[in-house]
Amino acid sequence: MTYCIASKLNSGLVFLSDSRTNAGVDDIATHRKMTVLRKDKRTFILLSAGNLAITQSVRAQLNDSKVSKQLWGVGSMYQAAEIIGRCIRSVKKRDGQALDREGVEFNCSFILGGQILGEDIRLFKIYSAGNFIEAEGDSIYFQIGETKYGKPILDRVLSPEISLDAAAKCMLLSMDSTLMSNLSVGLPLDLLVYEESYPGQIRYRYLDENDAYFSQLKENWSLHLKRGFDQLDRFDWDKAKKIDIKRIEC
Amino acid sequence: MTYCIASKLNSGLVFLSDSRTNAGVDDIATHRKMTVLRKDKRTFILLSAGNLAITQSVRAQLNDSKVSKQLWGVGSMYQAAEIIGRCIRSVKKRDGQALDREGVEFNCSFILGGQILGEDIRLFKIYSAGNFIEAEGDSIYFQIGETKYGKPILDRVLSPEISLDAAAKCMLLSMDSTLMSNLSVGLPLDLLVYEESYPGQIRYRYLDENDAYFSQLKENWSLHLKRGFDQLDRFDWDKAKKIDIKRIEC
Repeated sequence: MTYCIASKLNSGLVFLSDSRTNAGVDDIATHRKMTVLRKDKRTFILLSAGNLAITQSVRAQLNDSKVSKQLWGVGSMYQAAEIIGRCIRSVKKRDGQALDREGVEFNCSFILGGQILGEDIRLFKIYSAGNFIEAEGDSIYFQIGETKYGKPILDRVLSPEISLDAAAKCMLLSMDSTLMSNLSVGLPLDLLVYEESYPGQIRYRYLDENDAYFSQLKENWSLHLKRGFDQLDRFDWDKAKKIDIKRIEC
Repeated sequence: MTYCIASKLNSGLVFLSDSRTNAGVDDIATHRKMTVLRKDKRTFILLSAGNLAITQSVRAQLNDSKVSKQLWGVGSMYQAAEIIGRCIRSVKKRDGQALDREGVEFNCSFILGGQILGEDIRLFKIYSAGNFIEAEGDSIYFQIGETKYGKPILDRVLSPEISLDAAAKCMLLSMDSTLMSNLSVGLPLDLLVYEESYPGQIRYRYLDENDAYFSQLKENWSLHLKRGFDQLDRFDWDKAKKIDIKRIEC
């Protein structure tokens, strides 16, 4: 599988992706899931999850001269999401039936974020049917891939007001919980920030197993959780509601 | 869906289950997932997840006179797990093809734990094919249903040495993360402990939305996580590895 997250905050966008691809546990490889496309006043950041043959083909289509011309001519992020949706449908048209015959699901999903200068920053999640939704209001993050292990911490911490650095920290903890629980998600990680106040500029970092900050973060978080767990009151059998065990006897 | 957990520790067994059943978001009901079967020197605790029509039928079969006679005559927990496996196969034989024609997956899973006095306490996870695995060595817990949201905290905290109360607390936090993230899991909860040192005896509690301990636990844990999150060092852009962004440009 894979795990990618993107959040849209008041001060900008944060993207985080792992780089593991697997076709079974004996066929594991490293492929980047984050792609940056930028030219003149347009910056697009794309995250992908699902069948690698499909997601690579979608990315490849974006380099096709006709599609590329459309992409660099779009008037809105919405139109850019439409183009990616069309590329997905085009790959489905080419490969869908053959995959179906092999019993392989046409499985892919994308997150697209970025800005066209003059427009607001925007964030979309694009499904395998080529349709998409946009982050708005209380919906401030999207996940794709192996999303469940890392969701609770995002729900507890992310809010539009927090800083981009705090969001990056939260997303790294979400990634840590996922890495711990699922072999199909793995290092290295790609982390990218797009700041509202520096339009068109991005900060990008690459976190591998030697990254001192991530190692320390994982360790400190784990210690904090264990300490907090110990401090919580023990379960009080006397205070809890007793009801006749016959209720659950068969 | 549903969410059930059971752990096997040095001092006994702990079981926790929610009670939500849904056939779509507009068809939600409350059904218990925990069943206790006990007679003379045999105590069995059964947790169930999956299609309610299937899991109820499996439980009903256990009351069939022939099956019941077998169950109360087993010489080991292993044989009890075999009997539940056979009940699953019997329901599949009756309903499997019809479900298949409707495009409904034959989806069920069970956790069986308990003791036959004189034997060790044992814990099994039984799959929809009727086959099963047993908790042994480092494998000290089983989950069924909506398992992913609540897995990280179990992996961080559970170990064979911790007390039954500590395990109950950990499993309640795991349940809290799941309740927060997934509408298909819901209160009330059934919590049950089987102590190695009081063979044949069980402690059972019922936790609904008025349970003061669980409400406090959720609140304190949430506060602790947020405080801990704030205390962790912020992401240090200067120390992290910079590599050319061309690596991810398309």
